[in-house]
Amino acid sequence: MASCSQMLHCIFCFYFLTHIPITLGIDLQALLPKDLYPSTLQGLLKWYATQFKDPMMMDPPAWFKAFILCEALLQLPFFPVAAYAFYKGGCLWIRTPAIVYSTHVATTLIAILAHILFNDFSESTNLGPTSMSERLSLLAIYTPYLLIPVLILLTMLFDKEYNPDGEKKVQ
Amino acid sequence: MASCSQMLHCIFCFYFLTHIPITLGIDLQALLPKDLYPSTLQGLLKWYATQFKDPMMMDPPAWFKAFILCEALLQLPFFPVAAYAFYKGGCLWIRTPAIVYSTHVATTLIAILAHILFNDFSESTNLGPTSMSERLSLLAIYTPYLLIPVLILLTMLFDKEYNPDGEKKVQ
Repeated sequence: MASCSQMLHCIFCFYFLTHIPITLGIDLQALLPKDLYPSTLQGLLKWYATQFKDPMMMDPPAWFKAFILCEALLQLPFFPVAAYAFYKGGCLWIRTPAIVYSTHVATTLIAILAHILFNDFSESTNLGPTSMSERLSLLAIYTPYLLIPVLILLTMLFDKEYNPDGEKKVQ
Repeated sequence: MASCSQMLHCIFCFYFLTHIPITLGIDLQALLPKDLYPSTLQGLLKWYATQFKDPMMMDPPAWFKAFILCEALLQLPFFPVAAYAFYKGGCLWIRTPAIVYSTHVATTLIAILAHILFNDFSESTNLGPTSMSERLSLLAIYTPYLLIPVLILLTMLFDKEYNPDGEKKVQ
């Protein structure tokens, strides 16, 4: 039977592997010229944005674009490295990069979730969530990208596997 | 003569010490009811917001408010601890908390600086920067809060004082 630690490693590996096509195929559309993408992927984004009333991806505010730029330049190169480290397991060298990654992403999600919950979208060019139910549906899409990084951060901070010499020595 | 490392420690200690009154007296006004603050501090914020055309502090968007909440709940308790650690020097236990703090704050500043540089403030209730010169003036106010955290992060990642056993062991 797989241990809790092995299960977490599987989840983290899956998270980083699936993030590569999501970043390249969907998220970067908020930043790059639309013509760069095949109509299937443009249609997929449009369907998602309409279905879940996500105006951020169709008409991204400057701060959201800056986060997507970070996703492209800082996070994307890290995804295959992190996927490998969690697939292999026991890679202590991933601790510090994973702390930086997870803190960065959790912080971006704090802004995004607050925007979804409390921003007034009534004057948005693209359809945004207005009722609490619509806000919560959109929130549910983004929430895993807060939960998994927080789980990665807690694992790096407190799991004995990543703190073999105890807090004093490792820190 | 003070070494480069000692100078950095002084800068970090000063940064964290001065951040306490700034957070309590100014930044939290963006979140708390105005009546809680004496008119002098309300006036100071109003003068600053008008002088530097900072609409974020007078009429904060939801994502900015979320960052101020993090400043109050997560960062503020850390300020005296970090000031002590950098005053004393050689506190290896500050490494991981300082990495988390600096990554978090640098990420919030990426959003804030992008908002200052590229957001359209023409329909803002409170006066915002419109010309590039006004945007750069406001940017200059916030920039130290990106530069110092990045300097803290680089120090924690690469300074031998905080990595005494070499990369492999510490990570």
